[in-house]
Amino acid sequence: MKLEGQWHRSIARTADGAGVRILDQRRLPAEIVWIDLRSADDAARAIAEMWTRGAPLIGAVAAYGLAMALAAGEALKAAQARLAAARPTAVNLQWALDQVAAAVRNHPPAARGAIAFARADAIAEEDVALNQAIGRHGLGIIRDLHARAPDRPVNILMHCNPGWLATVDYGTATAPIYLAHDEGLPVHVWVDETRPRNQGALTAFELAGHGVPHTYVTDNAGGHLMMTGQVDAVFVGTDRVTANGDVCNKIGTYLKALAAADNGVPFYVALPYTTFDAATPTGADVPIEERSGDEVAMIAGARITDAPVANPAFDVTPARLVTGYITEKGVVARI
Amino acid sequence: MKLEGQWHRSIARTADGAGVRILDQRRLPAEIVWIDLRSADDAARAIAEMWTRGAPLIGAVAAYGLAMALAAGEALKAAQARLAAARPTAVNLQWALDQVAAAVRNHPPAARGAIAFARADAIAEEDVALNQAIGRHGLGIIRDLHARAPDRPVNILMHCNPGWLATVDYGTATAPIYLAHDEGLPVHVWVDETRPRNQGALTAFELAGHGVPHTYVTDNAGGHLMMTGQVDAVFVGTDRVTANGDVCNKIGTYLKALAAADNGVPFYVALPYTTFDAATPTGADVPIEERSGDEVAMIAGARITDAPVANPAFDVTPARLVTGYITEKGVVARI
Repeated sequence: MKLEGQWHRSIARTADGAGVRILDQRRLPAEIVWIDLRSADDAARAIAEMWTRGAPLIGAVAAYGLAMALAAGEALKAAQARLAAARPTAVNLQWALDQVAAAVRNHPPAARGAIAFARADAIAEEDVALNQAIGRHGLGIIRDLHARAPDRPVNILMHCNPGWLATVDYGTATAPIYLAHDEGLPVHVWVDETRPRNQGALTAFELAGHGVPHTYVTDNAGGHLMMTGQVDAVFVGTDRVTANGDVCNKIGTYLKALAAADNGVPFYVALPYTTFDAATPTGADVPIEERSGDEVAMIAGARITDAPVANPAFDVTPARLVTGYITEKGVVARI
Repeated sequence: MKLEGQWHRSIARTADGAGVRILDQRRLPAEIVWIDLRSADDAARAIAEMWTRGAPLIGAVAAYGLAMALAAGEALKAAQARLAAARPTAVNLQWALDQVAAAVRNHPPAARGAIAFARADAIAEEDVALNQAIGRHGLGIIRDLHARAPDRPVNILMHCNPGWLATVDYGTATAPIYLAHDEGLPVHVWVDETRPRNQGALTAFELAGHGVPHTYVTDNAGGHLMMTGQVDAVFVGTDRVTANGDVCNKIGTYLKALAAADNGVPFYVALPYTTFDAATPTGADVPIEERSGDEVAMIAGARITDAPVANPAFDVTPARLVTGYITEKGVVARI
């Protein structure tokens, strides 16, 4: 599917340059609706309520949010803190805010808005370049998998939406798949539903738009698919990789990593350097966001259960279960 | 919640004795609707379309279905084959039909209906007794877990609905929990959503009706809960245990078993002898039912994705991941 000529670019400055335009990801894939964010409050709300999502894209939205705050004459620290609180798990959010804050700190308030916008633009452009580089390195993995079984598609299982909708463009874990498909390698993607927010439907939407064969399955199905030889590799993104290589990613990632290890299926994590968090020793030190129970209990407006609900949004995959980290510098083997 | 004074008995003869009354499990937990089945075709449809479900309960419904066929003068073999084809994975279905067929085989057609109904009644009553015995043996496990940490509830994670709604009464994996709760042991159950059909909502409905504390979570959450020490044991039911101890159960069970093993959490499978299938060597020999993709893609009447869908309904948990089998004879350690 083409998005009004703007196929795969998830965020852009508004025509007047003073705000940003994002896709309303709550409405996708059923409807394509763009939202203009015109203040830091807009940006914080868009992040917290998941109008926008994906660790790299959240970073870009937050950077623009801080730029909008500074352009409006707000104090740096207060605006930065407000945006940083929007979601606790992704490290890119903090990283992007720190980048903007560092860029403006030695400048007078009147100049800060323009400087911050320029830094936010650079963060967005850098994300695109990082993902293209991740794609080139991950492409090598897909070529190798294809060479081992050239008569059938390479089957990749993907959890959540580490795609262009989660970044500024290309995606992290999807970038190698798009490049492989573009060069004619046969790739088929098993798309995990990714409850409770069904981000798998976003991945399916992306893959359909790009013409990549794919099949949508429940989160429960991945173990069976791996046990029955139907998966050649698992590709996931991540919200934070800690100093010891632990991977914090969408809830359920750990279960897929266990199944991959149990069946000898390689498990790859795609990420730019901005997602490495050397300051946090292990996954156990990462705050796991607990989201509203209604995300689980309410489906398409209907209440499925009156039960009390717990809704941890992320889990930690221990480094020992990771085959490699696909980064913009190359594929780094397990730490 | 009380069901019109008929709390936890999932199937009963109709007042005239010629049919059976079942709960429409598609409507639960939102609505409590009873359906009368009055022919073998009714029974086959109720099983295939999952108006009724759960390996032991399917066996009872099929037995009554065959009785209705014989009472209507149908040929034994044709009716048995039609009912056997309703769902391929559960072994109880075949077992119950074989029981009824064996009971009537040496009797003249005119007598077969009454004999078959009597055998179906016996199958239903035996299921209740088996589950009570499973409950008593599983209760010992919960008592032991409680003794190790007497100051807090015993946390049990449960996948799918191995409850009284899946049996004639008591349930398999729920029976120990009901008995523990009744004797005052503090038990808290993590209830897996169990996509795509959300049978977790049925388990939550049962537990609420019995006053057992519980929390509903996505299928993705179990690994995180185990890694963070919030689960003392996993209890599941099963549709078939093969000669080598492999466990065929609702899709996603294998992933939970992997997480249990990775975190030292005991993983128990509750089942009556009718679910052991000594004739099938391993789980790899069990046919895995592939159900309609719309079960996944359609949620509460809304289409979530246009993607192609695969929907395997069961998976195989290798015997090496099972701590013990809770049966009516006692707890059998891993084979």
